[in-house]
Amino acid sequence: MTTHDLVRELAEKNTTKIVLLVADGLGGLPIEPGGKTELETAKTPNLDQLAARGTSGSSIPVLPGITPGSGPGHLGLFGYDPLVFKIGRGALEATGIGFELGPKDVAARGNFCTLDASGLITDRRAGRIASEESFKVVERLQGVRIDGVETFVKPVKEHRFVVVFRGDGLDGGVADTDPQAVGVAPLDPVANSPAAAKTAAVAKEFVRQARAILADEKKANGMVLRGFAAKPALPTYLDLYGLRAAAIAVYPMYKGLARLVGMTLVGQAQSLDEQIAELSKAWNDYDFFFFHFKYTDSTGEDGAFAEKVKRIEELDRAIPAIMKLSPDVLVVTGDHSTPSRLKSHSWHPVPTLLVADTCRPDGLTEFSERACLRGGLGMFEAKHLMLLAMAHAQRFGKYGA
Amino acid sequence: MTTHDLVRELAEKNTTKIVLLVADGLGGLPIEPGGKTELETAKTPNLDQLAARGTSGSSIPVLPGITPGSGPGHLGLFGYDPLVFKIGRGALEATGIGFELGPKDVAARGNFCTLDASGLITDRRAGRIASEESFKVVERLQGVRIDGVETFVKPVKEHRFVVVFRGDGLDGGVADTDPQAVGVAPLDPVANSPAAAKTAAVAKEFVRQARAILADEKKANGMVLRGFAAKPALPTYLDLYGLRAAAIAVYPMYKGLARLVGMTLVGQAQSLDEQIAELSKAWNDYDFFFFHFKYTDSTGEDGAFAEKVKRIEELDRAIPAIMKLSPDVLVVTGDHSTPSRLKSHSWHPVPTLLVADTCRPDGLTEFSERACLRGGLGMFEAKHLMLLAMAHAQRFGKYGA
Repeated sequence: MTTHDLVRELAEKNTTKIVLLVADGLGGLPIEPGGKTELETAKTPNLDQLAARGTSGSSIPVLPGITPGSGPGHLGLFGYDPLVFKIGRGALEATGIGFELGPKDVAARGNFCTLDASGLITDRRAGRIASEESFKVVERLQGVRIDGVETFVKPVKEHRFVVVFRGDGLDGGVADTDPQAVGVAPLDPVANSPAAAKTAAVAKEFVRQARAILADEKKANGMVLRGFAAKPALPTYLDLYGLRAAAIAVYPMYKGLARLVGMTLVGQAQSLDEQIAELSKAWNDYDFFFFHFKYTDSTGEDGAFAEKVKRIEELDRAIPAIMKLSPDVLVVTGDHSTPSRLKSHSWHPVPTLLVADTCRPDGLTEFSERACLRGGLGMFEAKHLMLLAMAHAQRFGKYGA
Repeated sequence: MTTHDLVRELAEKNTTKIVLLVADGLGGLPIEPGGKTELETAKTPNLDQLAARGTSGSSIPVLPGITPGSGPGHLGLFGYDPLVFKIGRGALEATGIGFELGPKDVAARGNFCTLDASGLITDRRAGRIASEESFKVVERLQGVRIDGVETFVKPVKEHRFVVVFRGDGLDGGVADTDPQAVGVAPLDPVANSPAAAKTAAVAKEFVRQARAILADEKKANGMVLRGFAAKPALPTYLDLYGLRAAAIAVYPMYKGLARLVGMTLVGQAQSLDEQIAELSKAWNDYDFFFFHFKYTDSTGEDGAFAEKVKRIEELDRAIPAIMKLSPDVLVVTGDHSTPSRLKSHSWHPVPTLLVADTCRPDGLTEFSERACLRGGLGMFEAKHLMLLAMAHAQRFGKYGA
């Protein structure tokens, strides 16, 4: 019996409300050995108070030692084993720019490159062409027309773009055309299986027309395609948990991930205050709220320890407004750690806090990496977190008699 | 996706060095209820200092409550799920006496026994015949000649020996000839599947000739064979982790286990000092060092609490010489617990310490079973330890975008 089979069997509906507050990249490291992490440095009176009421623990995003990207990091928190459910790169890239993938779509990530007179790659990133310049080239590619298939070309940033083919009988099983080297020509898009033959032919025609269109470009006169992928088949929150789920996020990537599991995007918030307002407005219409806070990750990626501390304190100040809504279950966690010291995502466990009336006290009085090590949730895999949220929301029946 | 697929996908090469220091049977128990374990009794200033710098935890060798032998214990530490990857008894026995199994080999463990005039077993251990006496009998068995197959017979201890058949088309699927009872005759070696028909025939011919050779022996006039097994198919450290791995061990069993996963045996050290010297000598030529210390296990097996304490202190004194080499990652652990009180391997979690610059402080200042319970690695399965070592050695890329 898979965990999802179990969830479907036990899930029950009621009127309880669950808030999953994801502080992206929350976990950290001290700058100096033996020092304090960002969260340990931040003044977080509200989170500390919740730690005293709730149960804490340390979430392992995928497996010990494994650093996830945003995709697997969120899938885990949403209750989808990130080693079982995968989002292909093309699909994630499309998701990240807010392109809503449909069931007939195959997406690929495109990179502009520079070709010499004989068609060999001389620069794999087209001189890291500026976004404004690249956006114009992307517009020209929107002129490609392929019989029986709708084609979308969307800019991402600098030399990167996304192409989506929409039509019957398409399949993600097409090999990358990126040879990952200079001095060689881009590869042909080749089908990895008969099912992808049509998609490979479509991609080949796209490449042919694009080549002609780009011929007069100085930097971006060529392109390669990577990570062909259809929309991943993920059971929805309604199907799996019986939850009407809303997502309140500022950035397209997280909106996209939420949409992939069937959450409804709520509002157009651009700030934490606006997110809180949206949460309040949507409160009566949904059972579950995925609330995404980006800046604990972006400050970590920038290596800005003090800034990350401030962003954690900003989040802490938002807690009373969330608690005013009286969620039956509030979970505060992150999709992975992003220590400022490493300027990147990391594998370190993520401090996690669950607050509900049914929490067993674990004696903690603060929310921090160190405190969480002594918490009642112990060290657990992120994919199990939703089980706990459902349980504390009284939304699970008993397993077996 | 299996963990090994994941490891292969994420592994990257760099110049970092990992040392896996295995103190065999490290974990212990107090003699008196409520007392201190061997490790808690030992004075270990160097390990305690490392505990303050690193992250600690408790390693579960296989599953909670499961006591492993040396084979599964080490496979887990090496990152091979001991419930998936198995070493047949014959192969482990050959490995344990330093016999290097090849791809065409099938090994079986042999026991001398005493037969009566009608060929029924009267003593299953040939009167626990002394090793010197048994070794001479083994020498006589080396006279067996079988067409198309090379045969090796090697002594182990007392009534125990190993036989290895080398040839084309051999297979480990042959049933034991040991009836596990007296008053009955040894069984015929029977193939469990058609693939093992040749091996069963070879074994039968071996038994026939051996019977003739041993006819005039008083005690060891018969024998039974158990645990027919080929060399296990384990991916190598180079293939899996991209690590050039060296093993520095004194005892044949651990050298053999290291060789099964593709490690290179380094030096001929007979003492801890010599092992340190070999480590230092090999430092530039390898990325990973498996360093095995036997005496924490053997003293535990002897029930010699005070001796085990001394051996732990001996190991502690060797720590500065290892740290002088500046490993990027040092792991100190054991393959299982061997409490002196039980005089045997046990299932108790093994105190484990990982030291690297990327460790998150867990507030510990000593290395002991009790302290490890509050450590930042939490309670984890041994098979995940190498994931953490690879992560802290910065040898893993990110999983998913």
